[in-house]
Amino acid sequence: VNGPPKDALGDVDVETFRREAHRLVDWIATYLAEPERYPVLSPLAPGDVRRLIPTTAPRSAEPLARILDDVPQAVLPGVTHWNHPGFFAYFASSASGPGILGEMLTAALSVNGMLWKTSPAATEMEVAVLDWVRQMMGLPEGFFGVIQDTASASTLVALAAAREAVPGLDARRQGLVGQARLRMYASAEAHSSIEKAGIVLGIGQDGCRKIPVDDTFRMDVAALRQAIDEDRAAGLTPFAVTASVGTTSTTSIDPVREVAQLCARERLWLHVDAAYGGSAALDPGMRHVLDGAEAADSLVVNPHKWMFVPLDLSVLFTRRPDVVRAAFSILPEYLRTAEETAAPNLMDYGVSLGRRFRALKLWMVLRAFGHEGMAARIREHIRLAREFEGWVRADERFEVMAPAPFSVVCFRGGFPALPAGEQDAANQRLMDAVNATGQVYLSHTRLRGRLALRMAIANLRTQERHVRRAWELLQREAGRLGA
Amino acid sequence: VNGPPKDALGDVDVETFRREAHRLVDWIATYLAEPERYPVLSPLAPGDVRRLIPTTAPRSAEPLARILDDVPQAVLPGVTHWNHPGFFAYFASSASGPGILGEMLTAALSVNGMLWKTSPAATEMEVAVLDWVRQMMGLPEGFFGVIQDTASASTLVALAAAREAVPGLDARRQGLVGQARLRMYASAEAHSSIEKAGIVLGIGQDGCRKIPVDDTFRMDVAALRQAIDEDRAAGLTPFAVTASVGTTSTTSIDPVREVAQLCARERLWLHVDAAYGGSAALDPGMRHVLDGAEAADSLVVNPHKWMFVPLDLSVLFTRRPDVVRAAFSILPEYLRTAEETAAPNLMDYGVSLGRRFRALKLWMVLRAFGHEGMAARIREHIRLAREFEGWVRADERFEVMAPAPFSVVCFRGGFPALPAGEQDAANQRLMDAVNATGQVYLSHTRLRGRLALRMAIANLRTQERHVRRAWELLQREAGRLGA
Repeated sequence: VNGPPKDALGDVDVETFRREAHRLVDWIATYLAEPERYPVLSPLAPGDVRRLIPTTAPRSAEPLARILDDVPQAVLPGVTHWNHPGFFAYFASSASGPGILGEMLTAALSVNGMLWKTSPAATEMEVAVLDWVRQMMGLPEGFFGVIQDTASASTLVALAAAREAVPGLDARRQGLVGQARLRMYASAEAHSSIEKAGIVLGIGQDGCRKIPVDDTFRMDVAALRQAIDEDRAAGLTPFAVTASVGTTSTTSIDPVREVAQLCARERLWLHVDAAYGGSAALDPGMRHVLDGAEAADSLVVNPHKWMFVPLDLSVLFTRRPDVVRAAFSILPEYLRTAEETAAPNLMDYGVSLGRRFRALKLWMVLRAFGHEGMAARIREHIRLAREFEGWVRADERFEVMAPAPFSVVCFRGGFPALPAGEQDAANQRLMDAVNATGQVYLSHTRLRGRLALRMAIANLRTQERHVRRAWELLQREAGRLGA
Repeated sequence: VNGPPKDALGDVDVETFRREAHRLVDWIATYLAEPERYPVLSPLAPGDVRRLIPTTAPRSAEPLARILDDVPQAVLPGVTHWNHPGFFAYFASSASGPGILGEMLTAALSVNGMLWKTSPAATEMEVAVLDWVRQMMGLPEGFFGVIQDTASASTLVALAAAREAVPGLDARRQGLVGQARLRMYASAEAHSSIEKAGIVLGIGQDGCRKIPVDDTFRMDVAALRQAIDEDRAAGLTPFAVTASVGTTSTTSIDPVREVAQLCARERLWLHVDAAYGGSAALDPGMRHVLDGAEAADSLVVNPHKWMFVPLDLSVLFTRRPDVVRAAFSILPEYLRTAEETAAPNLMDYGVSLGRRFRALKLWMVLRAFGHEGMAARIREHIRLAREFEGWVRADERFEVMAPAPFSVVCFRGGFPALPAGEQDAANQRLMDAVNATGQVYLSHTRLRGRLALRMAIANLRTQERHVRRAWELLQREAGRLGA
């Protein structure tokens, strides 16, 4: 035997792993029990973390204990704590205990569910659990679900399928050069991932027409109809519309039913971006937000946003899985199996061949909370947003800047001593001031050219006192800044 | 207060989480200590797992303990154990203890590193640790690394950047219709993800020209040159070549240096697919496999393949991060931050906006094993493959079907009593027979029209006895089948 000594190879010693993993579990449990222990927004400056990390990898092995002991000084100061109950920025993503258990098992098994055969449980649990989600959202039978990493990927896949579905256009084989000039539509408030998908797919930003919104930030369907007519008259080929259920800035809900009727008449693929808002439909009292979405060709919803599953897990539902498969399936000999006609190979429904066993965490979370528990949490977040909105409306120094159909409130302060041109900067200072406390983290957007702060409530650990604290801080800092 | 009772909301009780997480750690440690406890290939038939899962989500919450207790019967029978030391199919992906610890921490923090600000540690550790990998692989300074989920995504991003770099073609703005007809090139043995990227990008399968290989399955550079000349003469626009360092079927290595010289002369983007083979360069004795790759515009390597990191983690290195960014960056107001000029926002370097903190697991694995430990494990796998190849060559009933420059051996049995037309079916039966033992899992490919079995050694837990056992089973079953 001329190989190296056996003890230098294989994995780290299992008992050492066991000891350190137990220690890490205790740290995680304490972290989850004290979610306000660290400032929500990392106070570090660019380069601070990098300076703590050696510039080259260690030559020799280091003990696991030492590596984990480095986490508090090398990692945590640079973490913005998405699990902090004062996280009100963007859309929340919070890790529930059951979700973390699911991730632990996923990491340990580390299967690649690219083919049914390479882990039947990964494929079949994904199909089964996504059908749970479909039912919980009130979507009809016939929607097939497949997990992607993020909504950006789900939307890319959906719009690739839409492109594939264009009659007479064999984009898969021939590409787009020399073909009809495609056009797709979304509102001016739609998420940037739609435009990004247009770029990737070779349609280009010019092929992505933005439709104006009404005074409540909803797509103007008459303007959509006119745009389609104009484009057809100009020799372009409309092929897809993305309607949003919960836009990123204000969470406005496009009139999906009317858009769907127009898409049916015009034979356009309807994709619904419900990445954030779709989860609300888990509450039967909020089902109406998906009115019309039953006619969609595809719909994206992100359990890693408002279903308390750790990143990443986005679900693409589609009534036309055959078209998605036609757009993406490539089966070289080395991936052929005897089962390919009896069971789906989920690699055929997206860009990525390798697929983590992501369904496990969703299975655990949905069981641990139950449908009623999921709905109760979502309902509570919406209730808290209504409370907050009420406080803002009751304070004459502030204004609410958009309807809040879910759990996000857009608002801003008014600074009477300042000219109109400096109101934005003052609100930016207001946001920076409350964020600097480490107790809350809000982000902003721009509405009709004016800066707006967003109070986005969807963190699993947020309670009424956290929302109240955010409001106190906003009032205090607004006062200091002369609101 | 008209909300629901507080105890119905928030996360599961932390002490319950702590108890169940400890129990799960013990299960995982035992699982890792007994990696041969379960059959490597799941013996289930399509539908078996689905039947064990209720058709609807539970209405009410279930105890965590009950959910975890369901894992042995509802999940494990349907798992194909990628961690089993007898996993010799495809390319291995095995989860090391340190990698699992990294995933646990990633899941608990569950940060979204889309922007620098949304977790500086996620961005800066990614940049730092990928620079470790760059150095370990012997790539020169100037290669910037960014994590993608899989090689399919890395290659899509690379080829999108290649498209962006075409002079006079503003694909981002204008799309591909009415533009030059693009062509990209890869060998006939290149991975299917390259063609998939061509489809997604709107170049189409017709825009992906496959270059013949020589008798050792390496790209024929003279044929590549001729193809480029022909295409230019026909008015097409060559723009990218993908060279493989470790093709999927045989792990052949394209002559990267010659391809790079041709690309430089023809001004084509050179992408190197080293998803599997690139890890071998961690062993200084194997650095030669990347000869010429220092001139690549982009290169993909997958730590989740042969660097013992759990799925998923692919690295895209590029010398032209500015072009990648130009292809993908979209910055709506709601994602603007004050730091965007001082620190990279990694969402700008790929399709997905949401980004898990994947760098943690790579940081842990590289430190826990050290550069020398990583190299020793890879060297041992290559040594085991050489041993196996020797045994096959010494047995006249078998033939080796391709050179084995890494740790994958392609071979097949000869069945003298059967006509030539039945040799493939006999080898398929041989593979099915050894896979049915539950002790090993091999997959196949097709080489010059003939079925070949692949013995792919790259699992962290594989020792010489497992390789020997595979060979014994192959010999035994081949004998039974009349080899």
